[in-house]
Amino acid sequence: MVRMTTTRFTRRVPEGDSRERSVCDTCGFVDYENPRVVVGCVPVHGDRILLCRRAIEPRSGFWTLPAGFLEMGESTADGAAREALEEALAEVAIGPLLAVYNVPRIGQVHLFYAADLPRPEFGVGEETLEVGLFAWDEIPWGELAFPSVEWALQAWHDRRGRADYPPRCN
Amino acid sequence: MVRMTTTRFTRRVPEGDSRERSVCDTCGFVDYENPRVVVGCVPVHGDRILLCRRAIEPRSGFWTLPAGFLEMGESTADGAAREALEEALAEVAIGPLLAVYNVPRIGQVHLFYAADLPRPEFGVGEETLEVGLFAWDEIPWGELAFPSVEWALQAWHDRRGRADYPPRCN
Repeated sequence: MVRMTTTRFTRRVPEGDSRERSVCDTCGFVDYENPRVVVGCVPVHGDRILLCRRAIEPRSGFWTLPAGFLEMGESTADGAAREALEEALAEVAIGPLLAVYNVPRIGQVHLFYAADLPRPEFGVGEETLEVGLFAWDEIPWGELAFPSVEWALQAWHDRRGRADYPPRCN
Repeated sequence: MVRMTTTRFTRRVPEGDSRERSVCDTCGFVDYENPRVVVGCVPVHGDRILLCRRAIEPRSGFWTLPAGFLEMGESTADGAAREALEEALAEVAIGPLLAVYNVPRIGQVHLFYAADLPRPEFGVGEETLEVGLFAWDEIPWGELAFPSVEWALQAWHDRRGRADYPPRCN
């Protein structure tokens, strides 16, 4: 079998389209690139928040909330629960939407949910170095992986005790 | 130049991945398929809502809110405003997030915003047959294109006069 090991795309406007897309030089396949959805949650047990220390780039070694790319066939809430299970082996119940953050520079939309961690049981997933439960004043603010992690934590904090809290947007 | 006119993909798990993806038979390109974001708005002038009658499939001839796929490099609010301009030639100011709807069966996440249409000026975009402003009791409920259009209209209606309305989710 012969297989090319690289794929080359040229940027051009496909027929019937109005935008430049990546078109494969070999077979004409159009790679419609759309922004991707990142789903995450703020898992809370009592008054403590679960955070994971990342084992992978980008920002390996820094602390994050469980979050990752939404996959086909799942809802945003289901995806957020799956990420908590994969990254922290934590079974969470997803609650209200806390925040919608746009990162247009890298084509991402982040949705963060409040989540209940009924039992303080968790572990270290494949993409994680360490998992811990942190009181609000124990959060390692200077070692958070991404701005959206800090924003989501703040949204969770602002929302406490309020039933009708509209999600934060940036 | 020789160009194949069809692209064939085989479903398999690429190296280092945990899920089946579409891999090009010709060049090995992995088509990471992720859910797509649909952004739309409920444009309101006074107490009337702008609706568009679709000129394209699916649901050609039915009424919809301006909405479409988020493109790379734009925020969800910017995308919602762009769709109002493209489909109804309407310049809107995007307001609060009204609703987040998941349609996992077809891999879509819909975000609808409230929007202000300061001047009752609009026209018929390329994908539109007709545009109109409708009072609440004039909305053609039986001729709406998609469930999320009805849900977004209901969310807008429920939200009126409330500052802290959390977005609806399905």
